Amino acid sequence: MSSRGRSNIDPRGGQPYAAAAMSLVFHSAHPYIPTLRADVRLFQVGEEAWYGGGCDLTPSYLDVADTQAFHRFWKAICDKYKPELHGELKEWCDKYFYIPARKEHRGVGGIFFDDLSSAEAGFDVEAFVREVGDSILPSWLPIVEHHRGEPFTDAQRQWQLLRRGRYIEFNLLYDRGIKFGLDGGRIESIMVSAPPLIAWKYNVVPEPGSPEEDLLKVLQQPRSWP
Amino acid sequence: MSSRGRSNIDPRGGQPYAAAAMSLVFHSAHPYIPTLRADVRLFQVGEEAWYGGGCDLTPSYLDVADTQAFHRFWKAICDKYKPELHGELKEWCDKYFYIPARKEHRGVGGIFFDDLSSAEAGFDVEAFVREVGDSILPSWLPIVEHHRGEPFTDAQRQWQLLRRGRYIEFNLLYDRGIKFGLDGGRIESIMVSAPPLIAWKYNVVPEPGSPEEDLLKVLQQPRSWP
Repeated sequence: MSSRGRSNIDPRGGQPYAAAAMSLVFHSAHPYIPTLRADVRLFQVGEEAWYGGGCDLTPSYLDVADTQAFHRFWKAICDKYKPELHGELKEWCDKYFYIPARKEHRGVGGIFFDDLSSAEAGFDVEAFVREVGDSILPSWLPIVEHHRGEPFTDAQRQWQLLRRGRYIEFNLLYDRGIKFGLDGGRIESIMVSAPPLIAWKYNVVPEPGSPEEDLLKVLQQPRSWP
Repeated sequence: MSSRGRSNIDPRGGQPYAAAAMSLVFHSAHPYIPTLRADVRLFQVGEEAWYGGGCDLTPSYLDVADTQAFHRFWKAICDKYKPELHGELKEWCDKYFYIPARKEHRGVGGIFFDDLSSAEAGFDVEAFVREVGDSILPSWLPIVEHHRGEPFTDAQRQWQLLRRGRYIEFNLLYDRGIKFGLDGGRIESIMVSAPPLIAWKYNVVPEPGSPEEDLLKVLQQPRSWP
């Protein structure tokens, strides 16, 4: 978890600006509990403000009911602001969290957005972002409650550690937010989002029909979750 | 470990070309045994050939005598080909294996070179590269023999796993060879060089005067090892 805030004079235009962001990442020790990543961001110059943020799930094992509930939860919030908003932000999320070298999405998605202003978006983006911030934990805690008491095997834990390798591949190879943070010299506050323990193994191919293969299928081809 | 070879028609000039490379990475389960990375590479177009390669050490704990012996070993080989060669290739290695975001070198160095041809370098680069390839294991195995029987603690093993985090940061954020391989679609043969188990922890600062701090000091400021 990390949070940060700044306010300053924009070196480009000489105008006062403010930037603030809050990021959350939870890596569970339980292989059935997906990683949650979420953030909200603000960049303001004079009277104008642009917002970014999102919330998405990265499971090691696919739970269809959890995934549907998570997407429905975020759709219900988006629907209050603009009818087509959820479809747009879900697609944005699927596109952003993608590992081209593996032709694999990082997780089962959620919502993602960047550079949204109320003037351009046609709805009250500040109110939306406030609601996103307040909704992060309520979107995830029911999934934690669902799985936290379930037993799991060493092999399932091992699979989770291997999947975390994909998580760090995405972060270090592709994530623009992370590259931005590294250029800003804040590597420890960036890398705190890394999983605490990661494993690598050559060419792991799950058994056909296994739960591990089920996950890979959905990562290779994002679904809509009605 | 990975090895690969190709031969083909250069799509740019229509000339026949050949490319071949052998890479070796050894990650030890013992925290006193440094990671060894080494490779030799050839790119040939018509009658002309360019070579690359290197061999370097990434320890979790600094052993001054081992490090001196390793650098002396490679200096003795380089000296046969050109008096200033070792100094050049050591500096190249120190510059290449560097993590700007941490202001830290990845390891204690060795030798590194790329795009060397006999015509430009003024010595028989093919013979040199053959000798480099033959010398990789002899440069490292004495260090393995030195430490393999020594006892170590859980805390030392944990430090090794944390240091492996730096290894993967370098590979994924900065290594040009890895980016080249990913563009070529060979992610599993690239990522096989990743350590099998890695840990992350926020803002670990070793005790002043500890062996862990000794390592960091030498990574922040490469030495010559007479």
